[in-house]
Amino acid sequence: MSDPFVVVGGDAAGLSAASKFARENPDGDVVVFEKGRWVSYAYCGTPYYVKGEVEHLTDLLSLSPEDAADRGIDLRREHEVVGVDTDAETVTVEHEGDRFDQPYGDLLVATGAHAVTDPIPGSDREMAFTMHGMDSAAAVRAALSPAGEQWVDTDVEYVDAELVQQYTDRDPPERVAVVGGGYVGVEMAEAFRAHGLETHVFQRSAHLLPPFGDAVCERVADHLREQGVSLHLNTAVSELAGSDGVEAVVHDDGRVPVDLALVGIGIAPNTRLLSDTPVELGESGAVAVDDYGRTSVDGVYAAGDCAEARHAVTGESTWVPLGLTANRAGRAIGQTVAGDLEPVGDVAGTAVVKAFELECGRVGLVHEDAASDAGFDPVSVTIDAGSRSGYYPGGDETTVTLTADRDSGRVLGGSIVGRDRAAIRIDTLATALESDLTVAELERLDLAYAPPFSPVWDPVLVAAKVLRGELD
Amino acid sequence: MSDPFVVVGGDAAGLSAASKFARENPDGDVVVFEKGRWVSYAYCGTPYYVKGEVEHLTDLLSLSPEDAADRGIDLRREHEVVGVDTDAETVTVEHEGDRFDQPYGDLLVATGAHAVTDPIPGSDREMAFTMHGMDSAAAVRAALSPAGEQWVDTDVEYVDAELVQQYTDRDPPERVAVVGGGYVGVEMAEAFRAHGLETHVFQRSAHLLPPFGDAVCERVADHLREQGVSLHLNTAVSELAGSDGVEAVVHDDGRVPVDLALVGIGIAPNTRLLSDTPVELGESGAVAVDDYGRTSVDGVYAAGDCAEARHAVTGESTWVPLGLTANRAGRAIGQTVAGDLEPVGDVAGTAVVKAFELECGRVGLVHEDAASDAGFDPVSVTIDAGSRSGYYPGGDETTVTLTADRDSGRVLGGSIVGRDRAAIRIDTLATALESDLTVAELERLDLAYAPPFSPVWDPVLVAAKVLRGELD
Repeated sequence: MSDPFVVVGGDAAGLSAASKFARENPDGDVVVFEKGRWVSYAYCGTPYYVKGEVEHLTDLLSLSPEDAADRGIDLRREHEVVGVDTDAETVTVEHEGDRFDQPYGDLLVATGAHAVTDPIPGSDREMAFTMHGMDSAAAVRAALSPAGEQWVDTDVEYVDAELVQQYTDRDPPERVAVVGGGYVGVEMAEAFRAHGLETHVFQRSAHLLPPFGDAVCERVADHLREQGVSLHLNTAVSELAGSDGVEAVVHDDGRVPVDLALVGIGIAPNTRLLSDTPVELGESGAVAVDDYGRTSVDGVYAAGDCAEARHAVTGESTWVPLGLTANRAGRAIGQTVAGDLEPVGDVAGTAVVKAFELECGRVGLVHEDAASDAGFDPVSVTIDAGSRSGYYPGGDETTVTLTADRDSGRVLGGSIVGRDRAAIRIDTLATALESDLTVAELERLDLAYAPPFSPVWDPVLVAAKVLRGELD
Repeated sequence: MSDPFVVVGGDAAGLSAASKFARENPDGDVVVFEKGRWVSYAYCGTPYYVKGEVEHLTDLLSLSPEDAADRGIDLRREHEVVGVDTDAETVTVEHEGDRFDQPYGDLLVATGAHAVTDPIPGSDREMAFTMHGMDSAAAVRAALSPAGEQWVDTDVEYVDAELVQQYTDRDPPERVAVVGGGYVGVEMAEAFRAHGLETHVFQRSAHLLPPFGDAVCERVADHLREQGVSLHLNTAVSELAGSDGVEAVVHDDGRVPVDLALVGIGIAPNTRLLSDTPVELGESGAVAVDDYGRTSVDGVYAAGDCAEARHAVTGESTWVPLGLTANRAGRAIGQTVAGDLEPVGDVAGTAVVKAFELECGRVGLVHEDAASDAGFDPVSVTIDAGSRSGYYPGGDETTVTLTADRDSGRVLGGSIVGRDRAAIRIDTLATALESDLTVAELERLDLAYAPPFSPVWDPVLVAAKVLRGELD
């Protein structure tokens, strides 16, 4: 009997791979080692759990351990893989103090990423949190609950009941700090404001959501201020100060008293497991893979937030840790390991985020600088256009940035922001970009028009029209 | 001095062409002859005017005669072109009983289409209407107003005040019939129900909105019934009976008493003007044109609802009279006539429609029959998928039909229906289809994911995944 397909990490990439493998190859064995108790949870949903729009933490689970067993997956939770020997083709696993070696036929490293807090002293205080993982989400929600009120259901076996109780017993905060103005920062600002808290967002650079480009950033900043958020831009946080918990955010020009701090300044790939192996990392520090998710070592794959992927525009290897990428790559690798070669697919850097009532999207190379760095001669325009026919109620001004290469006319990237069906429109650009369309081809697309949904010229077409004028 | 660019018809295609020409060639002359009083109005908005969501008829105007003059367009309303002599290169124009010949350098025929009522006797009665044109919209809205209440503003010079007064003075209907279950029929059913009227929709075939495919049709039918609409499917109307106005819809199996009937059974291109010319029509009966909107006669162009266009999937000439097509073709022809050759662009048959709370979209070849007729070997699937992450509130089941060619795997068409951001998602398919993507390529697109807007696998990706399983 051959050795099993071993998967390290029981989240999106890992369980997608295991599920697909088990379905394609019902006679094969697949073992998933997950170091924690939670598996297959929707990380992107955690801000909405803290906000209160999602009632139970377990609502965020997409696959229960029982479901996994039904699919023929040997899922071992609280099993941490602590070593990989690519010569012997074994992994070393720790479980409840014991340690054993598990041989593998093929190996998928799907170890994910972790939240970075490094440059900020005090991030380990009580009432200082990151938002990476279900335990964090439970802790933050417990911290917001009035003392003694049980907002987090600790009956569920996955929940770290001790951590939850610790925060349930504390008085709730009145003033909170969000350190970092990326996705998590913007989503958590919305969550905190929904609880009526005085909310401060600190961002080192001049812009929130930097990958979305200036036009989106500016509308989001204005909107957050309208929603009562205090923005501290161009402000580097030097410390989370306090004695019993967090009491103030210290920055270059002063200090802001707060009772809770959420640090969302970035994530880094979990690759330590591979440090003593010949598996090569890419420039980003994530695992380098080919079009099929294969690493530099035969029989070893990597997928999800710990792995790189090829960028649809630049053709270069890049690190864009997002949910679809993880699911898709995992699924493809499961199929490949089962014997049917399947590419993991390129990434276009497509991302969307809700900022209170604003919908934001971005794809490809938005900034002219990024496009220049990739060897293009970029031209970029930003336009405003209605989301519906002007006479039809409920529309909103939609701001589109579109960037193209001057020589070839090829669409390189874009962004979009508005209140009315703005985010989902980025899919048009993602499709155009992955199809290597030129601006002229984009301008001539036969897109949807009906007064309740879109004006005759969709905002994306308006941007293409204006950009084409710049290119001619 | 050379002869002017003459445009026949002052709506979307005609005025887009004239505007673009005037901008590109400020020294050139452009004359637009429009037989009516209204110019450049949003036909697609008229149901929402009747419904009451759009307050003034003039809100539907996208370009006033004054705006046209400011753009350097010589716009002549109430000037009907009654003849074309392509040898002499002149058109014959009637205005207030006078008749004159106007020489042209280039000629654009943008005469639009008209509502068909032919097979239904009684369509000329009082309280029987079509919805083609602003005068019809004004009349229907006046007919709905309580006797003596002035819902339609007759101060505006464009309005046919006599017609409006005639219907304002009448008692309003309590029971209305919509004959025809296409776009107009579905939109007008919504408008009538908004006024609390007993509403009957008669459709000759088994399905509403036939071009959208069975899955959309079925959900729309269920939804209309939920909204209190009486559907009469497979029911051919033989007459609108009555003495003073409409009193009943007569069909094969009986009669339904109503006080008003709206006939929306189709439109036909206005091409009579060309009947004595060598300008060739296509199989559809609309004017045949090439990739630049040129007809079979030098210097004569056609665009908008009277002209054909090339289909992006079949490559064949087809007649899809919709708003964007008209605007885009007009604009391209304006540029071409100004000396800068510009293609009018293919049509993908993209269409979206709102049916009460449902959003519907379609593109390309949805029906397997249509795909077979075009020489493909079609495979089609229909799936249901969430519009948002399952745990995030406000989502709706989204139904996607996707059709592809078995041999090549090429995406041929699709449809979509749901309450939450469904319609605009058709643009992803339109872009994919115009880029000749295969189902495998579609499945690997990096589309947007964030819990409030889309699940990890967008419904379009789910459909691609399932269809690919059928193709393998």
